[in-house]
Amino acid sequence: MRRNMLDRIFREARTQNAWRDTPVGDETLQELYDLLKWAPTSMNCGPARFLFIRSPEAKQRLLPLMSPGNREKTRQAPVTVIVGYDLEFYEHLPKLFPHRPEARDGFAAEGRQAHAQETAFRNGSLQGGYLILAARALGLDCGPMSGFDAAAVDAEFWQGTSVRTNFICNIGYGDHAVLHQRLPRLAFDEACRLL
Amino acid sequence: MRRNMLDRIFREARTQNAWRDTPVGDETLQELYDLLKWAPTSMNCGPARFLFIRSPEAKQRLLPLMSPGNREKTRQAPVTVIVGYDLEFYEHLPKLFPHRPEARDGFAAEGRQAHAQETAFRNGSLQGGYLILAARALGLDCGPMSGFDAAAVDAEFWQGTSVRTNFICNIGYGDHAVLHQRLPRLAFDEACRLL
Repeated sequence: MRRNMLDRIFREARTQNAWRDTPVGDETLQELYDLLKWAPTSMNCGPARFLFIRSPEAKQRLLPLMSPGNREKTRQAPVTVIVGYDLEFYEHLPKLFPHRPEARDGFAAEGRQAHAQETAFRNGSLQGGYLILAARALGLDCGPMSGFDAAAVDAEFWQGTSVRTNFICNIGYGDHAVLHQRLPRLAFDEACRLL
Repeated sequence: MRRNMLDRIFREARTQNAWRDTPVGDETLQELYDLLKWAPTSMNCGPARFLFIRSPEAKQRLLPLMSPGNREKTRQAPVTVIVGYDLEFYEHLPKLFPHRPEARDGFAAEGRQAHAQETAFRNGSLQGGYLILAARALGLDCGPMSGFDAAAVDAEFWQGTSVRTNFICNIGYGDHAVLHQRLPRLAFDEACRLL
């Protein structure tokens, strides 16, 4: 059983390129967030923001901003998540990290924008990874994508906010008949060293 | 059983601040990499690099570079992983993404450094998240940290390479008696929207 779960999350999960029309209910998206939210971020800063695109109207706003090769699969997917990160995540620190009240100012103060940006991007990306693995743990398939016009997605979906788009991920139940061939990975000795 | 695994990876896992002296064998680190390596990165670029610090000698090189509050727990942990990302990850694309031979030049060409840096940091961070969750899935505890002198760690451990430090993570079996109080998370409506 443990082996099954490791296979499902890591070893046998595959990036999907086509989707069955099995829907994903809103309660599943709630369950997904209620898993991924517990995984760690520095100072519990939790900068990731998630737009779950489900309606045809919202899909139509997104599709022209995707790279041509990503449009049809994004149209098919029951849910497309725009994963963003909030550059002003620190405004929530008084609630999220209450025992250190000065934490907010370490990011909000003059001259700390680059530090805040790096923290938001690093931890927002960690949370993007948690989203993918939590979805798989719940039996969903994922199709993460970097091929889209990020400035245009920001303007269309995050206008007037301090959130920026990180990546976009289709979620649903994949059509496993049309998977690409699995690509190789770096060997342990190429990516790791023991010291 | 599925519930147990979700609890272990997400709901009940906690960032550790003290460590039992139970060792973590090299074969466990190999198993850890052999899980996390399968999780997705854009163009299969896999930019993360991992230094597994186990020996007292290597620990001694690292400890003075950690923030004071992170030193004692890092000294105790059986393994401390320096999670880095390779800015020249694209040199491996001909092997990792062989069906698109022009992929390398999209990062290596003049004027593409910022794009390569962003791709390395985003995907290296995703892989850092995969490391944490894969370790938990194998029954290990984690203690990720951002409090250290990144430039000094780069100089001490990645000198002469194109790798930069992302974050540092203790791994082992935690002393659950000394956990901090669990911090709150943003509610669904604060972090997510359904469109």
